[in-house]
Amino acid sequence: MTKVAVLGSGSWGTAYAKVLADAGSEVLLWARRPEVATSVNRYQENPDYLPGVTLPITLKATADYRQALDGARIVVLAIPSQTLRENLADWRDFIGPDATLVSLMKGIELGTTMRMSQVIAEVGGVGDERIAVVTGPNLAREIAGEQPAATVIACADHDRAVELQQASQTAYFRPYTHTDVVGCELGGAVKNVIALACGIAEGMGFGDNTKATLMTRGLAETSRLGVALGAQRGTFSGLAGLGDLAATCTSPLSRNRTFGERLGIGESLEQALRRTKQVAEGVKSCRSILDLATKNGVEMPITAAVVAICHEGRRARDEVGALMGRATKPESLA
Amino acid sequence: MTKVAVLGSGSWGTAYAKVLADAGSEVLLWARRPEVATSVNRYQENPDYLPGVTLPITLKATADYRQALDGARIVVLAIPSQTLRENLADWRDFIGPDATLVSLMKGIELGTTMRMSQVIAEVGGVGDERIAVVTGPNLAREIAGEQPAATVIACADHDRAVELQQASQTAYFRPYTHTDVVGCELGGAVKNVIALACGIAEGMGFGDNTKATLMTRGLAETSRLGVALGAQRGTFSGLAGLGDLAATCTSPLSRNRTFGERLGIGESLEQALRRTKQVAEGVKSCRSILDLATKNGVEMPITAAVVAICHEGRRARDEVGALMGRATKPESLA
Repeated sequence: MTKVAVLGSGSWGTAYAKVLADAGSEVLLWARRPEVATSVNRYQENPDYLPGVTLPITLKATADYRQALDGARIVVLAIPSQTLRENLADWRDFIGPDATLVSLMKGIELGTTMRMSQVIAEVGGVGDERIAVVTGPNLAREIAGEQPAATVIACADHDRAVELQQASQTAYFRPYTHTDVVGCELGGAVKNVIALACGIAEGMGFGDNTKATLMTRGLAETSRLGVALGAQRGTFSGLAGLGDLAATCTSPLSRNRTFGERLGIGESLEQALRRTKQVAEGVKSCRSILDLATKNGVEMPITAAVVAICHEGRRARDEVGALMGRATKPESLA
Repeated sequence: MTKVAVLGSGSWGTAYAKVLADAGSEVLLWARRPEVATSVNRYQENPDYLPGVTLPITLKATADYRQALDGARIVVLAIPSQTLRENLADWRDFIGPDATLVSLMKGIELGTTMRMSQVIAEVGGVGDERIAVVTGPNLAREIAGEQPAATVIACADHDRAVELQQASQTAYFRPYTHTDVVGCELGGAVKNVIALACGIAEGMGFGDNTKATLMTRGLAETSRLGVALGAQRGTFSGLAGLGDLAATCTSPLSRNRTFGERLGIGESLEQALRRTKQVAEGVKSCRSILDLATKNGVEMPITAAVVAICHEGRRARDEVGALMGRATKPESLA
């Protein structure tokens, strides 16, 4: 039986740990707070992040990361993107020499503009062939509810991808393997920014045409950035691109979308933060994504508009007007 | 001032006629029923299809198609797909020898498996350079409400596409030109079937991951069919592919989606028809699209499932189970 450590007990970390346990792996979930580990072990529930979901009895938790990592063949990283560097520095010496490191994180590191797999390679000192990414249309709460979903497991080493696929396949969770790690990570990171934009449009009272247009042009700018960084264009038409984007932009469960709505109705970033008590990932990532685009000479008008609204005090109405007013041209050149 | 005839006064025909009038063209809207024409002329309203929307005073209507066609430089066809052949046979002798024929219709003809532009070419006896297609994320009611939206105008003759673009550009409606007529038409037709599938999943109680997966895999099968028929793959990532699909699959205004929900909760086709009093386009088109795929050796599992549920008495639950149970493999081969 494959031994797996899942480091991070937020909603997606916990839901994916459930998938792995349901698929028959021996899973130990690490929670920073001991009371979360206790609740999982005693009551099969993570009341903070997946209230009401009964976790499998075979899923165990611990607040001791050394215990979680001991003997783990698969190490799943499921912590906030901007804390990865610091945490992994503590963990790396306890990770087995041939373990696969799996990222569930969807962000770009501020300052360095590194993708999560790059941070893992640098801080963990591991080769690309040992790093995998799981991404796709995977709203945690629905997967915890065992609704059918597909996902993508990307790894430069196809055999490792297949191993992880087998370790996480259940009747309700259907993983496809992929080799384009760069494309899969970018799809996951930029979609948060596009979801913010859709939320802003929704908050402003715009309808489904506007949101569909933002999704389409948003995926186009994601794809431009990806291709400039060596990703395959086709990845963005798949589950890690369109799939993840569609789930995030349409779901009422998406934090990025609901946070965007606050901005769209006219609240400032500070007001929206006070109300929601947590920062949506896209609010942080939009700056590092725009930096990455600028470095690579790629135009990302929707991301730039989100940065302007979130961080430069621009009004949503002016930015949306500017987006719609760009010169008309053939779609392929737009 | 460009003279335009819009033949068909359903919600999209009327909304696009409004766009053309707002953009400064002289538009005459043909309505089959004289009372609709009277209402547009007297009260600036089409109460059956766009109740509550005030149409521009410059938009005139008639129940006499010869009057509408007289001198029209642009002829917009906006009638139910399966009635095009019969209607166009009556109209063709009154269409000017250099007029552009514009299709707003999204269907595949039953029996012949022809796209609308092919029917126009055959029945109208006009060359491809005179036939254009308007498609994209264009829910009629939102455009009538002047919410910002983008669209695609596809024509083999780029100059004609630009002419039509200029004739239909307003502050709220932003047209991009395109040359891939085949891809744009297929995107528009198949999205109705995928929207039905999303509605079925919703009716069965599935959430946004499942719908996002259906959208992603649905667009992949649309793209496979398109490429087999000579379309450009990139078209399906654009407004006519993803854009139209996203708007249709997420909007509560979409007839295909809401019809699918009836089937998903377990109603038979007959029960759903009795309740909605109109057939969703995808119910008819799914058969001709599957025929077209079969002829061209293309696998379309989601379309096949919709055909099985609508026309072969299969249960939704079995079909969704079969879709999810297909063997896992690399995403690109799936």
